[in-house]
Amino acid sequence: MIIARVVGSAVSTVKEGKLVGRKLLVVQKATPENKLYGEPFIAVDTVGAGEGELVFVAEGSSARLTESTLDAAVDAAIVGILDSLELNKQTTFRKE
Amino acid sequence: MIIARVVGSAVSTVKEGKLVGRKLLVVQKATPENKLYGEPFIAVDTVGAGEGELVFVAEGSSARLTESTLDAAVDAAIVGILDSLELNKQTTFRKE
Amino acid sequence: MIIARVVGSAVSTVKEGKLVGRKLLVVQKATPENKLYGEPFIAVDTVGAGEGELVFVAEGSSARLTESTLDAAVDAAIVGILDSLELNKQTTFRKE
Amino acid sequence: MIIARVVGSAVSTVKEGKLVGRKLLVVQKATPENKLYGEPFIAVDTVGAGEGELVFVAEGSSARLTESTLDAAVDAAIVGILDSLELNKQTTFRKE
Amino acid sequence: MIIARVVGSAVSTVKEGKLVGRKLLVVQKATPENKLYGEPFIAVDTVGAGEGELVFVAEGSSARLTESTLDAAVDAAIVGILDSLELNKQTTFRKE
Repeated sequence: MIIARVVGSAVSTVKEGKLVGRKLLVVQKATPENKLYGEPFIAVDTVGAGEGELVFVAEGSSARLTESTLDAAVDAAIVGILDSLELNKQTTFRKE
Repeated sequence: MIIARVVGSAVSTVKEGKLVGRKLLVVQKATPENKLYGEPFIAVDTVGAGEGELVFVAEGSSARLTESTLDAAVDAAIVGILDSLELNKQTTFRKE
Repeated sequence: MIIARVVGSAVSTVKEGKLVGRKLLVVQKATPENKLYGEPFIAVDTVGAGEGELVFVAEGSSARLTESTLDAAVDAAIVGILDSLELNKQTTFRKE
Repeated sequence: MIIARVVGSAVSTVKEGKLVGRKLLVVQKATPENKLYGEPFIAVDTVGAGEGELVFVAEGSSARLTESTLDAAVDAAIVGILDSLELNKQTTFRKE
Repeated sequence: MIIARVVGSAVSTVKEGKLVGRKLLVVQKATPENKLYGEPFIAVDTVGAGEGELVFVAEGSSARLTESTLDAAVDAAIVGILDSLELNKQTTFRKE
């Protein structure tokens, strides 16, 4: 799963049936040191993530294997909020 | 789901059986500020999107999880039209 | 689906069971203006495409959702031949 | 499967139901000579891999085809620990 | 399917159950002129490919649609050995 930061949100009135009522967040990939890279994209939030939080995102068919995304036309879902990351025995990120 | 703008359309007479009658649009990835990047590709429209609109696109097997693409050889489907995008509490895009 | 041009063909005697008898073409991604980019790869033809034609290719599991690729170890299939492409109301490609 | 090195670990209290109890490691792609490249990401460990080890990672839906990841929202799983790699008849990596 | 050359092999004692007994080869993407590019990765051989041979590789869920990879945590499988490739009516590769 990619490491990503929640950087914003999206509003969409006209959307595919099974997406109605889903929370659409804008996320961007992040390094373990919480530096952003790549272009933002939209992921469905399944864990109550908030803006600024570091999360991990399941992509592809795996994004549909949560209670709120089952069988929906979803290819990216936030499936966990990161408390901390350790790289080579050093803490590179800790949630405040 | 990637953020994309509808930039054109495609006509194809000879196509795989289940694609007959599907609306084929040309889309291109866009930043939350609605700037285009990457190379255009073809997505099936499932929500009545029009040229110039900012949409989001489901890719891979998730593109088949809409009523009009079910079990079709489709790997990209427009599944929502974006009304607005907010990044770091700033509105970066609003549909006119 | 990506826009691609048929640039050649492949011959393979020793191949996985379900691929026997499939037509293997070499394709390369193309812009809506029919300019090639990226590296060539192999796709199964399901629509009778010929060399030089501009086509669109379904990738991943969607490549298996045609009559001739069902349940085969195929991750790219030509699923349509392009007649024309229009970008920002301008025709960028028309089949001769 | 990509060749990757285990470079760290992740802690996540709030995560999707089926991910509870899974060991989340931070991995980074590596060449056959064990040089790192690309950005780190998170994979579920299914084979008892340890930090510093060279492993191979299954991505996409294949990451769910292990006993501990079945039907979970997982798109990357460590499925093997590498003992050695040989390139052009030369050993480029051997586990210590 | 991508065009690739078999450049080496991998040994792994500790691996996921269904991978036991599978032949793990190291492959690298190749152009139709048999020039290597990209970083090497690991693919399961399903056709008896040998080092130095030009092959084509199915990725993603399609890699599991062979007799020896069915339902295994495999995201890349060699599914054919290339005899020859033709580009723009010119033979760019012929197996010796």
